Amino acid sequence: MQLSPFLGELVGTLVLILLGDGVVANVILKQTKGEAAGWIVITTGWAFAVTMGVFIAKAFGSIDAHLNPAVTIAFAVATSDYSNLASYIPAQLIGAFLGAVLVWLHYLPHWAATPDPGTKLGVFATGPAIRQPAGNVISEFIGTLALIIGIAGISAKALGTIAIGLGPYLVGVLVWSIGLSLGGTTGYAINPARDLGPRIAHALLPIPGKGSSDWSYAWVPIAGPVIGAVVGGLLIKWYAL
Amino acid sequence: MQLSPFLGELVGTLVLILLGDGVVANVILKQTKGEAAGWIVITTGWAFAVTMGVFIAKAFGSIDAHLNPAVTIAFAVATSDYSNLASYIPAQLIGAFLGAVLVWLHYLPHWAATPDPGTKLGVFATGPAIRQPAGNVISEFIGTLALIIGIAGISAKALGTIAIGLGPYLVGVLVWSIGLSLGGTTGYAINPARDLGPRIAHALLPIPGKGSSDWSYAWVPIAGPVIGAVVGGLLIKWYAL
Amino acid sequence: MQLSPFLGELVGTLVLILLGDGVVANVILKQTKGEAAGWIVITTGWAFAVTMGVFIAKAFGSIDAHLNPAVTIAFAVATSDYSNLASYIPAQLIGAFLGAVLVWLHYLPHWAATPDPGTKLGVFATGPAIRQPAGNVISEFIGTLALIIGIAGISAKALGTIAIGLGPYLVGVLVWSIGLSLGGTTGYAINPARDLGPRIAHALLPIPGKGSSDWSYAWVPIAGPVIGAVVGGLLIKWYAL
Amino acid sequence: MQLSPFLGELVGTLVLILLGDGVVANVILKQTKGEAAGWIVITTGWAFAVTMGVFIAKAFGSIDAHLNPAVTIAFAVATSDYSNLASYIPAQLIGAFLGAVLVWLHYLPHWAATPDPGTKLGVFATGPAIRQPAGNVISEFIGTLALIIGIAGISAKALGTIAIGLGPYLVGVLVWSIGLSLGGTTGYAINPARDLGPRIAHALLPIPGKGSSDWSYAWVPIAGPVIGAVVGGLLIKWYAL
Repeated sequence: MQLSPFLGELVGTLVLILLGDGVVANVILKQTKGEAAGWIVITTGWAFAVTMGVFIAKAFGSIDAHLNPAVTIAFAVATSDYSNLASYIPAQLIGAFLGAVLVWLHYLPHWAATPDPGTKLGVFATGPAIRQPAGNVISEFIGTLALIIGIAGISAKALGTIAIGLGPYLVGVLVWSIGLSLGGTTGYAINPARDLGPRIAHALLPIPGKGSSDWSYAWVPIAGPVIGAVVGGLLIKWYAL
Repeated sequence: MQLSPFLGELVGTLVLILLGDGVVANVILKQTKGEAAGWIVITTGWAFAVTMGVFIAKAFGSIDAHLNPAVTIAFAVATSDYSNLASYIPAQLIGAFLGAVLVWLHYLPHWAATPDPGTKLGVFATGPAIRQPAGNVISEFIGTLALIIGIAGISAKALGTIAIGLGPYLVGVLVWSIGLSLGGTTGYAINPARDLGPRIAHALLPIPGKGSSDWSYAWVPIAGPVIGAVVGGLLIKWYAL
Repeated sequence: MQLSPFLGELVGTLVLILLGDGVVANVILKQTKGEAAGWIVITTGWAFAVTMGVFIAKAFGSIDAHLNPAVTIAFAVATSDYSNLASYIPAQLIGAFLGAVLVWLHYLPHWAATPDPGTKLGVFATGPAIRQPAGNVISEFIGTLALIIGIAGISAKALGTIAIGLGPYLVGVLVWSIGLSLGGTTGYAINPARDLGPRIAHALLPIPGKGSSDWSYAWVPIAGPVIGAVVGGLLIKWYAL
Repeated sequence: MQLSPFLGELVGTLVLILLGDGVVANVILKQTKGEAAGWIVITTGWAFAVTMGVFIAKAFGSIDAHLNPAVTIAFAVATSDYSNLASYIPAQLIGAFLGAVLVWLHYLPHWAATPDPGTKLGVFATGPAIRQPAGNVISEFIGTLALIIGIAGISAKALGTIAIGLGPYLVGVLVWSIGLSLGGTTGYAINPARDLGPRIAHALLPIPGKGSSDWSYAWVPIAGPVIGAVVGGLLIKWYAL
């Protein structure tokens, strides 16, 4: 496959999920070196998963490095140009699925070592700390809105062009911030591909002793982020951020 | 509302408190994913809350991105130009109040799950580790002075113009530093709006099982920061930092 | 010895291992100030060991600052220019060996204080969380591939030239990310010199109460990274990253 | 006092110690918000104490922002220009003393709350994890050498001029790295003023229930850093880093 925005979004999202679901695996699976290393490890891992995903997406041909249907939707709404959705979103979903397959492969000896099926699912898909669908959707909405407005802030015209190489780091810091501050309720999917792609992988992969893929929750990390994306996109449009 | 310094200060402070009080909620409320994650999570969360608040304030029209009456007062004292106080400080207070309302909404399922009223207040307002008003005012004074002189140092003429995009990150690092090193006594309000706005929100919001808003302490995180701001502003003026 | 790429690779890798094996010593040896400080300390320490190794390698004459035979092999494969291998790889191995000797010297009072021989070996060489050679090689392969593609992403033509001084920091962030997310299985050698040099030092040094140098595992952190380097180098070549 | 290198070194070192000893106070004194928060908090706190000390030193007139007699000695040896020693070193010692006084004031309610005299001394002065003077001097020597060579690497001619504002951050990252990796033995004084100034403050201040200032150890964090500075300075000179 040639370098292209499609390939870039795919490979970038693959890396995002390899490193993002990877840090969750390290912290929650049994007998890993990072077992029970806590929220600071989870959030730092996801932050730099984003940073590295963005760098690598651009290297493989992505211009925007969204890695997230919510970001693609938000900027489509903001610019009234919906032409990227049909290629970016499938690329992000395929990348997220493949990244999750790599996490399964990377942590191969640890699935059988981890008895609890819910823990195994937790590596792939988000789940709520307290299951209250309305509240959970609100959390995913607020987290995603913070992501969209944060990206707009980092790249705002008001600021001037930031030093080359700093942008992907700062977007990682944004996701670090959202994870630390807003991730406590639903585990901050804030990205439909991040949740759906790996959840499909969980359903398909031969994981020893796995349980339900909890499809009844799967709409929450889609609905919340999509609503957040639309509202965020409208704010960017109205305020010409 | 149009882009303006008023809107910028308001939205930026809203984001500061959403992410700042948000990380406290994540760490101290019950059944969150970051429960009991400790001081490194609290301080990293507040650091990047500042970074993101500054980026977003500028996107929404703020020129200075103070997000803090103490910073506004310090630079008014330093420049002998008090014209911004009447618009910035109300914007900061309204933003802080609204940010706290969003934290309440974001962590909606967790209020009833957290029995202790003092813990619930701790999400919104600062409180002293050991209640000694004189000592507590000294701590808030020293912390705020470090903030003001730190901001002056980061933007000092002596250094030249820093790379675009680095400034908001470095101000976040400054607040990280103050939290890690000086936050142990009073929880580093170092910002009257950060404490007062959310404390009002705590008093007004229908939080299940909430207790006192501890108004007897509310003057400390105003007095200490204001004194620190005036002294810091005079130092900036005298030394032409 | 004069400044040269050989000296630069040697001194840079020495610093990498002094600081990298040093943080492991601090966390796992007994009676240190960082005893049991956990995965966040290990991974942050290794991240900045890389950053500082790169800065110092360049100061001492390195042009590329690879500090890692896998990186040298990957870029040789990518450019079809194998001329650096014969000088860089010995320099990296000698540097890694000498860095490990300095760690032994630095933590001199703590070897006798640490009873378990496996813990003492853990300061020098990586070992698997669960011993499954095929799975362990896969982990080292995936980790190294992420390293190579990450370096290519950070320095990709698509991005433009990043701000001076940021590159070594971002490579440190890349290794932070790999450690947090992929280090949980085999301790992320992702560098044959990082493992072999210190393992030789462990075998030779007069460490009180030391046990086996576990030579049966030593091929894994060589094979995995070398395969990852070749595949990564081919990807860089094919995609002209 | 007017802006000058003397004032800059004094104020910068004051800030270094306020924030550096401050984070130790937060972690080891009793009833603080950061009590027992661990090595990641200690080392992150000291890292940014350096970053902020450097920014503020430059704002107050320092050209070099050494904040450390070992750094001043190293660059004097490297350049064979010893003219700064007589003004910088007293400024650094006075600043370190005053910074420690501010830490005492900031944590005023917590001294009586902390019963152990050794803990109270630990806020001000470094002490060895295992008391072995020869080994302890070696540790301080290696740590200081890493500091000097690291500073030389960050500012090496080979790299070009780094982006403005990044330098103080990277020096903070260097000290973060040294703390994480080499701080486990003696608490990484790597700066004679950092240890001696606060130790004098400990001896003079009216701290309730304080014990010995452990003068028998005070030569170690002077001797080790001075030897490291001389060797580091010679390396910089020989290799024209």
